[in-house]
Amino acid sequence: MTDTVSEIRDAKAAALRMAVLDGGVKRAAIEAMAAAVEANRGAILEANAEDVRDAEGKVQAEILSRLRLNDSKISDMVSSLRDVAALPDPVGETMSATELDEGLVLYQIRCPIGLIGVIFESRPDVVPQIMSLCLKSGNSVAFKGGSEAGRSNRVLFGILRDAAVSAGVPGEAFVLMETREAISDILKLDGYIDLLIPRGSYSFVRYIQENTRIPVLGHSAGVCHVYVDAEADMEKAFRVALDSKIQYPAACNAAEKLLVHSAAARYFLPRMADLFAANGVEMRVDGRCRPHLLGFDAKDASEEDWYAEYDSRIIAIRMVDSADEAIGFINSHGSHHTDCIVTENAETQRRFARMVDSADVFINASTRFADGYRFGKGAEVGISTGKIHARGPMGMEGLTIYKYVLVGGGQTVGEYSGPDAKKYKHRHVDSKYRL
Amino acid sequence: MTDTVSEIRDAKAAALRMAVLDGGVKRAAIEAMAAAVEANRGAILEANAEDVRDAEGKVQAEILSRLRLNDSKISDMVSSLRDVAALPDPVGETMSATELDEGLVLYQIRCPIGLIGVIFESRPDVVPQIMSLCLKSGNSVAFKGGSEAGRSNRVLFGILRDAAVSAGVPGEAFVLMETREAISDILKLDGYIDLLIPRGSYSFVRYIQENTRIPVLGHSAGVCHVYVDAEADMEKAFRVALDSKIQYPAACNAAEKLLVHSAAARYFLPRMADLFAANGVEMRVDGRCRPHLLGFDAKDASEEDWYAEYDSRIIAIRMVDSADEAIGFINSHGSHHTDCIVTENAETQRRFARMVDSADVFINASTRFADGYRFGKGAEVGISTGKIHARGPMGMEGLTIYKYVLVGGGQTVGEYSGPDAKKYKHRHVDSKYRL
Repeated sequence: MTDTVSEIRDAKAAALRMAVLDGGVKRAAIEAMAAAVEANRGAILEANAEDVRDAEGKVQAEILSRLRLNDSKISDMVSSLRDVAALPDPVGETMSATELDEGLVLYQIRCPIGLIGVIFESRPDVVPQIMSLCLKSGNSVAFKGGSEAGRSNRVLFGILRDAAVSAGVPGEAFVLMETREAISDILKLDGYIDLLIPRGSYSFVRYIQENTRIPVLGHSAGVCHVYVDAEADMEKAFRVALDSKIQYPAACNAAEKLLVHSAAARYFLPRMADLFAANGVEMRVDGRCRPHLLGFDAKDASEEDWYAEYDSRIIAIRMVDSADEAIGFINSHGSHHTDCIVTENAETQRRFARMVDSADVFINASTRFADGYRFGKGAEVGISTGKIHARGPMGMEGLTIYKYVLVGGGQTVGEYSGPDAKKYKHRHVDSKYRL
Repeated sequence: MTDTVSEIRDAKAAALRMAVLDGGVKRAAIEAMAAAVEANRGAILEANAEDVRDAEGKVQAEILSRLRLNDSKISDMVSSLRDVAALPDPVGETMSATELDEGLVLYQIRCPIGLIGVIFESRPDVVPQIMSLCLKSGNSVAFKGGSEAGRSNRVLFGILRDAAVSAGVPGEAFVLMETREAISDILKLDGYIDLLIPRGSYSFVRYIQENTRIPVLGHSAGVCHVYVDAEADMEKAFRVALDSKIQYPAACNAAEKLLVHSAAARYFLPRMADLFAANGVEMRVDGRCRPHLLGFDAKDASEEDWYAEYDSRIIAIRMVDSADEAIGFINSHGSHHTDCIVTENAETQRRFARMVDSADVFINASTRFADGYRFGKGAEVGISTGKIHARGPMGMEGLTIYKYVLVGGGQTVGEYSGPDAKKYKHRHVDSKYRL
């Protein structure tokens, strides 16, 4: 048995103790984690500076910017930890209660999932974010970070775990794996790890999804669309399309495609092209858009452009003749992440919201709003484009499940069967059962 | 492309139309399905009689009894269909609404998953049950049944689909696969099938779980425990233990193990043994139980007995010295399905409910209550022992997920960023968005 496997096994065993941790202990532990990060800014920044020095020139600028910590990112970690500490304890909440019969009440009670595996690239701020959410929701967590962030992750993890342990949380509940082989170990541990959350590039997430039997939540691609309808308010359309593209082009929720109704194109496209040009956005367009873009610098879109995730200041623009054509195109070419319509027509809004098969369907609002913090979840575990368990920006609710607790007085199913069967009441009640 | 693959592809495409079917159409379609089953009793029973004739002598008695239909089972199908027809339409329900800011409201809206794959053995009544639940929840469904029930499934499926189509439901949404190769096709279709529900034997379900990347919900084993505590009410203990074992021994929620606190054993065991003997239940016991079972016919339990699922009139009995020992034993030897404690001590009840890591944890009630119908869900898709998406008896809620619909007036994330950032309100509101 490798070290990884034995640590994972211990973390799984600790999950049962995590599940019954007192809410006050969890809150105090996360507050201690916040204080410890605050008190160790110097050590964290120093370790991170070494990681950055080693990575410079070897990795893309985008990865380097995710890797690099500074005082403001550390302040964000501290305030995010305090936000999570202040959230209500989700464990033990009665989600529903049904009286099956007099003196026989069924409670559906929220509980942790068990052991969460998190595999991520470059971004050390994932560690405090997910560690606090797992602790608050009563789960154990095993991390495997990218080697380029090795020192940053190790220092952060140590500080956070020590703080949690000092508040009474079992230390075995937290595992940081550092070897390259750890990933292949993790992917095989479906007997121990209940849920895997990968955060990283398309190929990285696809690799995880295709090589494990553990349930995986997350997203590999973020190919988001903005559709400007014939009945769009043009001022909203300009604002939403521009923000969706440029507010943070490297984000998964940035728009990569702009679909324009043919009836709106003549007015919309030239002015939109001005805005894109002024903001350094490269346009790749279909032939039908060309006549409206005379004098603009725009490339011809290739077939691949309609599926591409650029993560940079490039946008592909296509003309459509109806909202239904836009819906069909988004469903067949997108990644079921976040797609937006700009229109004033309530019926078209509703049709788009119903028919677009994406985690987030936005009406007259930037795709960049697709984010756990902006959605009011405190922090984010990840964004799921799957259809199972949790979809879209995922907060703590994605780390919980429920159990059914049936409280009776010696009832048998025999009494409710056969010719003289007692009848079930099946009445929803307001009663709570505090686990 | 095989026929199976092209049918599955069409069913997936039809899922988008299923998702927007009017609630009235769905209700009328399921009522038409009930009427059609009622009107075709003769044809269904005839096809089934041929299946039974072919299977006799070739399959176990238990499988034969699941395969065999009769008038009363058909009446159950009809009334279950009518129950599902009467359930409220889950699609479009606003699960939560959050005002992110003035004029920017986020709705979490329940929607179907897409295409559900159901692979099952012998039991033809799975077809109307799951077909109606999928239709009601707006999903497409592809069935692969056991060959022993081939004629029964084909006749039932045809009657049900024709009835649904006559009410305006797209026929492509329903697929019945009959070839043996269909299973291996299905398992590879993770691009089309969103969720697999296998229903059958341990090895059958394990095979499915281990050979697909499609999410699988269900259970392979049902090794359920009844623990009789030192502070148990003995009358309740006898009733609950007996019913859990004998009410329907072949069911996954029947008790296979009986744990007895050493302080209760002397009084409990001899009388319990009398009841088991009177009901033809074979006992397999540990050495510590022996002295309390003098004169009874009981075998020595082997190590395998503590993990075994008998599905018949056999029970393994073991003595423990504390509720904690029972909890530890259940967590390490059980199948996380349904486990019961009999005790009057409220603190021990609560400890057991919190610490036993099973889908269903029962207090003073028979394990046989673990069932979608008894839980008040109308019908049951299956019982899940996983920790993701749905756990325990799974009704229609297991066939739905949600999407986030954000309704704004042209807002950009830029306005909420930087030094002059607008602040989010993140206020829960009662507003509904009707998809």
